[in-house]
Amino acid sequence: MPRIIKKRSKKVGLPPGTPVYIGEKKAEKVRITIIDYDEAQFQEKEAKTIEECFPFEDKPTVTWINVDGIHQIDIIEKIGRHFNLHSLLLEDIVNTGQRPKTEDFEDYIFVVLKMLYYDEKDNEIKAEQVSIIFGSNFVISFQESERDVFNPIRERIRNGKGRIRKMGTDYLGYSLMDAIVDNYFIILEKLGEKIDDTEEELFANPTPETLQEIHKSKKEMMFLRKSVWPSREVVSVLERGESSLIRESTGIYFRDVYDHTIQIIDTIETFRDMLSGMLDIYLSSVSNKMNEVMKVLTIIATIFIPLTFIAGIYGMNFRYMLEVGWRWGYFAVLCVMLIIGIGMVIHFRKKKWL
Amino acid sequence: MPRIIKKRSKKVGLPPGTPVYIGEKKAEKVRITIIDYDEAQFQEKEAKTIEECFPFEDKPTVTWINVDGIHQIDIIEKIGRHFNLHSLLLEDIVNTGQRPKTEDFEDYIFVVLKMLYYDEKDNEIKAEQVSIIFGSNFVISFQESERDVFNPIRERIRNGKGRIRKMGTDYLGYSLMDAIVDNYFIILEKLGEKIDDTEEELFANPTPETLQEIHKSKKEMMFLRKSVWPSREVVSVLERGESSLIRESTGIYFRDVYDHTIQIIDTIETFRDMLSGMLDIYLSSVSNKMNEVMKVLTIIATIFIPLTFIAGIYGMNFRYMLEVGWRWGYFAVLCVMLIIGIGMVIHFRKKKWL
Amino acid sequence: MPRIIKKRSKKVGLPPGTPVYIGEKKAEKVRITIIDYDEAQFQEKEAKTIEECFPFEDKPTVTWINVDGIHQIDIIEKIGRHFNLHSLLLEDIVNTGQRPKTEDFEDYIFVVLKMLYYDEKDNEIKAEQVSIIFGSNFVISFQESERDVFNPIRERIRNGKGRIRKMGTDYLGYSLMDAIVDNYFIILEKLGEKIDDTEEELFANPTPETLQEIHKSKKEMMFLRKSVWPSREVVSVLERGESSLIRESTGIYFRDVYDHTIQIIDTIETFRDMLSGMLDIYLSSVSNKMNEVMKVLTIIATIFIPLTFIAGIYGMNFRYMLEVGWRWGYFAVLCVMLIIGIGMVIHFRKKKWL
Amino acid sequence: MPRIIKKRSKKVGLPPGTPVYIGEKKAEKVRITIIDYDEAQFQEKEAKTIEECFPFEDKPTVTWINVDGIHQIDIIEKIGRHFNLHSLLLEDIVNTGQRPKTEDFEDYIFVVLKMLYYDEKDNEIKAEQVSIIFGSNFVISFQESERDVFNPIRERIRNGKGRIRKMGTDYLGYSLMDAIVDNYFIILEKLGEKIDDTEEELFANPTPETLQEIHKSKKEMMFLRKSVWPSREVVSVLERGESSLIRESTGIYFRDVYDHTIQIIDTIETFRDMLSGMLDIYLSSVSNKMNEVMKVLTIIATIFIPLTFIAGIYGMNFRYMLEVGWRWGYFAVLCVMLIIGIGMVIHFRKKKWL
Amino acid sequence: MPRIIKKRSKKVGLPPGTPVYIGEKKAEKVRITIIDYDEAQFQEKEAKTIEECFPFEDKPTVTWINVDGIHQIDIIEKIGRHFNLHSLLLEDIVNTGQRPKTEDFEDYIFVVLKMLYYDEKDNEIKAEQVSIIFGSNFVISFQESERDVFNPIRERIRNGKGRIRKMGTDYLGYSLMDAIVDNYFIILEKLGEKIDDTEEELFANPTPETLQEIHKSKKEMMFLRKSVWPSREVVSVLERGESSLIRESTGIYFRDVYDHTIQIIDTIETFRDMLSGMLDIYLSSVSNKMNEVMKVLTIIATIFIPLTFIAGIYGMNFRYMLEVGWRWGYFAVLCVMLIIGIGMVIHFRKKKWL
Repeated sequence: MPRIIKKRSKKVGLPPGTPVYIGEKKAEKVRITIIDYDEAQFQEKEAKTIEECFPFEDKPTVTWINVDGIHQIDIIEKIGRHFNLHSLLLEDIVNTGQRPKTEDFEDYIFVVLKMLYYDEKDNEIKAEQVSIIFGSNFVISFQESERDVFNPIRERIRNGKGRIRKMGTDYLGYSLMDAIVDNYFIILEKLGEKIDDTEEELFANPTPETLQEIHKSKKEMMFLRKSVWPSREVVSVLERGESSLIRESTGIYFRDVYDHTIQIIDTIETFRDMLSGMLDIYLSSVSNKMNEVMKVLTIIATIFIPLTFIAGIYGMNFRYMLEVGWRWGYFAVLCVMLIIGIGMVIHFRKKKWL
Repeated sequence: MPRIIKKRSKKVGLPPGTPVYIGEKKAEKVRITIIDYDEAQFQEKEAKTIEECFPFEDKPTVTWINVDGIHQIDIIEKIGRHFNLHSLLLEDIVNTGQRPKTEDFEDYIFVVLKMLYYDEKDNEIKAEQVSIIFGSNFVISFQESERDVFNPIRERIRNGKGRIRKMGTDYLGYSLMDAIVDNYFIILEKLGEKIDDTEEELFANPTPETLQEIHKSKKEMMFLRKSVWPSREVVSVLERGESSLIRESTGIYFRDVYDHTIQIIDTIETFRDMLSGMLDIYLSSVSNKMNEVMKVLTIIATIFIPLTFIAGIYGMNFRYMLEVGWRWGYFAVLCVMLIIGIGMVIHFRKKKWL
Repeated sequence: MPRIIKKRSKKVGLPPGTPVYIGEKKAEKVRITIIDYDEAQFQEKEAKTIEECFPFEDKPTVTWINVDGIHQIDIIEKIGRHFNLHSLLLEDIVNTGQRPKTEDFEDYIFVVLKMLYYDEKDNEIKAEQVSIIFGSNFVISFQESERDVFNPIRERIRNGKGRIRKMGTDYLGYSLMDAIVDNYFIILEKLGEKIDDTEEELFANPTPETLQEIHKSKKEMMFLRKSVWPSREVVSVLERGESSLIRESTGIYFRDVYDHTIQIIDTIETFRDMLSGMLDIYLSSVSNKMNEVMKVLTIIATIFIPLTFIAGIYGMNFRYMLEVGWRWGYFAVLCVMLIIGIGMVIHFRKKKWL
Repeated sequence: MPRIIKKRSKKVGLPPGTPVYIGEKKAEKVRITIIDYDEAQFQEKEAKTIEECFPFEDKPTVTWINVDGIHQIDIIEKIGRHFNLHSLLLEDIVNTGQRPKTEDFEDYIFVVLKMLYYDEKDNEIKAEQVSIIFGSNFVISFQESERDVFNPIRERIRNGKGRIRKMGTDYLGYSLMDAIVDNYFIILEKLGEKIDDTEEELFANPTPETLQEIHKSKKEMMFLRKSVWPSREVVSVLERGESSLIRESTGIYFRDVYDHTIQIIDTIETFRDMLSGMLDIYLSSVSNKMNEVMKVLTIIATIFIPLTFIAGIYGMNFRYMLEVGWRWGYFAVLCVMLIIGIGMVIHFRKKKWL
Repeated sequence: MPRIIKKRSKKVGLPPGTPVYIGEKKAEKVRITIIDYDEAQFQEKEAKTIEECFPFEDKPTVTWINVDGIHQIDIIEKIGRHFNLHSLLLEDIVNTGQRPKTEDFEDYIFVVLKMLYYDEKDNEIKAEQVSIIFGSNFVISFQESERDVFNPIRERIRNGKGRIRKMGTDYLGYSLMDAIVDNYFIILEKLGEKIDDTEEELFANPTPETLQEIHKSKKEMMFLRKSVWPSREVVSVLERGESSLIRESTGIYFRDVYDHTIQIIDTIETFRDMLSGMLDIYLSSVSNKMNEVMKVLTIIATIFIPLTFIAGIYGMNFRYMLEVGWRWGYFAVLCVMLIIGIGMVIHFRKKKWL
């Protein structure tokens, strides 16, 4: 699981609005792709420099600029200058510890969301920050690295499937957010399966590893929660449609995304409840096991300690012990021991310990 | 218990508004029934194709189209085209992982609810999604499979009992929702009895199975909660009566359903409280049992270990042990042992361990 | 404690507004009393049939019809027809599983509350449903059976004590609700004493029965909560005084009842907190006890097992054991044992185990 | 700690507005003091009868009537008649189980608060009810018994220190409430110290008494909470300044008191959190102790039981045991025992049990 | 960790608005620095007496007076008189137990925040109170002692970096608050690392010290929460921009601080969740350990107690014991013992205890 809190100490003391990249250092080049379309035409290209994107702005078509990689501050700053973006916004794009949020700067809307993915290598959920800016005829999206979550949207634009080519930037913005939120379901499904496995293990053969699994899942839920809860608010603000950039007919789509975030939050809460129930089960299974161990000890001790005592008596070296001289003394004592032993076993049977 | 989260991965990446059935594959044919009535007349028929339903739309009478089975996408799409329904709505009908919700599209109101039933075979609660659309002169309801929860309503329409024949589509819509919500009470009664049984068992003879029962009931409550909580909101939206499709005189009926959902939620919360109280009882009964086991062990060990020690002393082979040669030595030692033993028993009686 | 959920299955499938009595079957006749008064005059009679009540309606005086017993549906229905009451209201009167609620039907206000009483025979709290309808010149109250909680009000009307004879139906309605809410305090006092007793027991001598007491009290609190929480809302709605049936000067009295319900809820929550604190105490007292038991076992075992071992050594039959032949060997070994024993005791004293 | 719920059963059934004293019976006479002042003049006297207070009402100066003791109903009633107070108000003054509240009767404002003090004798926190009524030129305060919490205010009026002499009844009312709320800080400090002591004890040497301390502190927090929470609301109502009796310039002072109540509530919640954390620590320290005890037992048993077994073998009386006759047999066995013993100790060292 | 509640008893009984310093006594002199700037000019000086600051007030430039040390009441009072500050405000500056709050006195805005820092010496988080007053052309800030958190702002003003020199007092006020809130992130990072360390320890080798660490971190979270929660409200009030002192263009900066406080609160809540999860893990690891200890004891006892009993039998001194005389008796018994011992080991292997 990624750290709950990102290193922000690098930023402290700098003037507000200074974009500082706080993630890991990366060597890869930033990749910029441009998709420009309206109902009739479609153009796609990969830009070498960010300046290639700027001419598209003057066209009435929808221009989608996607930037994969935010570790090159100068690119972000150039975009900021060209599109006249607020400096705090630039800071937020680059500060990957940002909480999901939306901000309405009359000319454009700024949205920050978390994209979750399952890192198979580290076997844990990770989050990347996605920032989306959409104005009247452009959408700019920033990702920390290249991921394929937006590919189906690209495909739909290319093929003109669905209504995406007929709609404006608000619908494209919605599509990007929808792709991110839909992705949460995949993560939840994966986690749900893991939790189900852990639960089965819990009832079949609980070990300290099971406890660790539960604890890990709990932490993953906390992490998910931190990413998804504020998303709800983000979508809710857009859904209420107070911005002139969001057409009324697009409102219902945002409402749909809103419903999805609610559903995800519901599921996370249910998982949390399940996990805390599983912890209780684990604790009581530990107690139950101890009970079993104690019973074995008690049964053995209770049967043999008195018998050993009897044997001890006849092991004493007193000169005047009549029984010792008797012909059937040994046999009698063995019988007494047998009777006591059987009696004890019956007693434990009755108590349901055996 | 059904899985908390449904497979949605099939849907990811598709354009919004694409209806994709995510449930199990089914072979049965979809069954369509039409009931058409007003105060004076009544007509009921089973449609072979969905097209048979469309003529009824032009009549001023109330037309209720009930579709049992949503796994044939083409039927849903035909209805959608004919009644001019929004594509997101069609998607929601078919996506059975949908959260209960209501949506007001001026011309019609769309309601999604969960119908619960007790699957005797799998011995668990299951949920099916019911979608209801009601416009000015038609009501369309979709169920996942054929269930008899709407039968009493059909009966009432046939016989003209109650005021249903005199009222419009809003009252029919209310009746369907009321039938679904009333059904929750039956489920709750069943669960309530199971919880009462478990509680009795808990005090009489708690076993690890009791714990499993508690855990299972807890999970069922989570499942119920997830289905019922959002229903409250759904009914509340309709009860506030902001839609022109709901007449003022019907408002009080929706308020009644609202009261029922609140009551169901109250009961679920009370059950949850009871179950978590039962878990505490279980845990402390495990501790109590261990206490009992420990006491038995301690009593036996505390009585016999010192006695065995005494026997051990007189089992030593020292040549010069006066007591061993005494006439009454053996008898004296036995007496001492008896006194110690009885003393111990008295001591434990005082401590209330015996 | 009464069951959390009442049998509603009888009702499922019936048209809404059908009054169905869901309580136990009763043979007793329903008792109807009429009190008619204004500042100047007063009349009281017991009605044989419900029809005797109807003439009073035309008089400007306040008419209070009290019906003890709701198992005769026909009486309820006659009243409903005569006073022109909504059918859902009639259903609610008879459905004793109803949640406390209030409903404003312009011509009259409908209030459902729970009356609690302590059933000495079953040694548990029980609830009965009381429905109150008050219009401009009549108040109708329904109880499940004859209880004396309204007697002081009758007395006050008879004697003209207080301001009740000078005020209208709203004040009478308030008086009935006040009587019911005041009664909650008596129940809470009783429960409070029981909880105090349990707490004392908990510290003096906790037994599994103490745990059962705590559990029972917790369940009673849940039951109380379910009855009282919604009452707050009921009173709050009336207190806000939006109905024309409640005069402004009566508002302050409803505010007083509201304060009382808040106080009762506060107390219930405090009791719940106390009970969950007591459960923690119980659990740790069980652990403490086990600790004590374990200490006794450990002390005995730790002292005597090594000593027994020493005795065992000199019980071995080796031919060449010098010590065994020594004159003071036996004495020396006994001394060594004594020293070890005393050393152990001192050790345990230091560890504060003794 | 005082009982959570006061005896109200005495009151049940009486007409509303009947003042009934529900506290302990007291013999002391009620003490009435009058302070009359404005910026220029100041007069203080102790009244024998309540009638002496009435002439002051006609003067434009601020008149503060303080009544210590509320067990003489007739005095309360006389004041009520003279100042034309609502009968429910009189009931509330005398009913010491009242929840803190405020009520605005246009001509005067009625405030009920709880004054807390630490009863050194019973070593517990106690609460007394203080009722304050302030009109345009008079303030009447009622206390259950004579306490010195208002003395600094008296002193300030006498000396004309601060701005109290220049301000009206609202400022005096504020001063009284401020004195009561400030007093909560003293109680909290005392409790805070006690909790800190308990915490230290918890880590140094937890005993069952520590648990009782924690439980007692928890109950005190519940009691405080019940007294302070509603005070917040009381002050908040006054701070919002909707009454014409509170001048705008006094508003900020009420806001200050409001801030204090919030701070007190914050602190109470923090203490509650701390206490529940301490309970967890206690429980796990009990478990830890048991672990220690078990380890001692296990070490002793594991070392000596096998050794005793070996000794037992050579204590057997078989005629043909070669070892027994060997010259170094005894010595060899002792060596073997020593090796086993040392081996066990090393083993436990490795396991960190020793 | 600092005490949850500060000594306020010194203040009780004094007239409201009396500034009383309740912190530790300090000998250091109070240090006053003045920074005066607008876009064109900049002046910085250290004032010997507070009177040196007053001439700056008449200039239209932004004047920032920073006072390090609040233990000299006379300085506070002089500032209060000169800038015409409300007496309650002065009291709040000096009362370091104040809850973070903001107060809008038309001519100036008053803000109290907590500055947190990590005291390396005492190895705990400490809080200092910072009060900020900003009017139309002046900002006064009070700190308890000299800290360097405002240094970057000074540096920015000196160098004219960022937009601070171009903006007014509201932006300076924002900068100060931003510096304080940004500092919280550093504290959280430090705590986050500590919690991660504790967690690792928890899984590797939990000791009672680990428990103490968890408890300490929990208390630190409570402390942080108490400081940060009300800050949110403070910033939120300013962000809503109802005061005429805050220009609209500065609003977005306050919104940014608001986002940061929300993020900090989120993180604190997540840490709290993690810590309570860790406590559960600790408790169950204690149980697991006890289980291990018990198993060892049980295995040893169960193997050797029966064997010792057998040895005891043949240690009895009966004259007529055939086996004792047999040639292979001893050997046979040893074999039997071996078989029993091996059988037991196999049994425990099956039970997975070994």
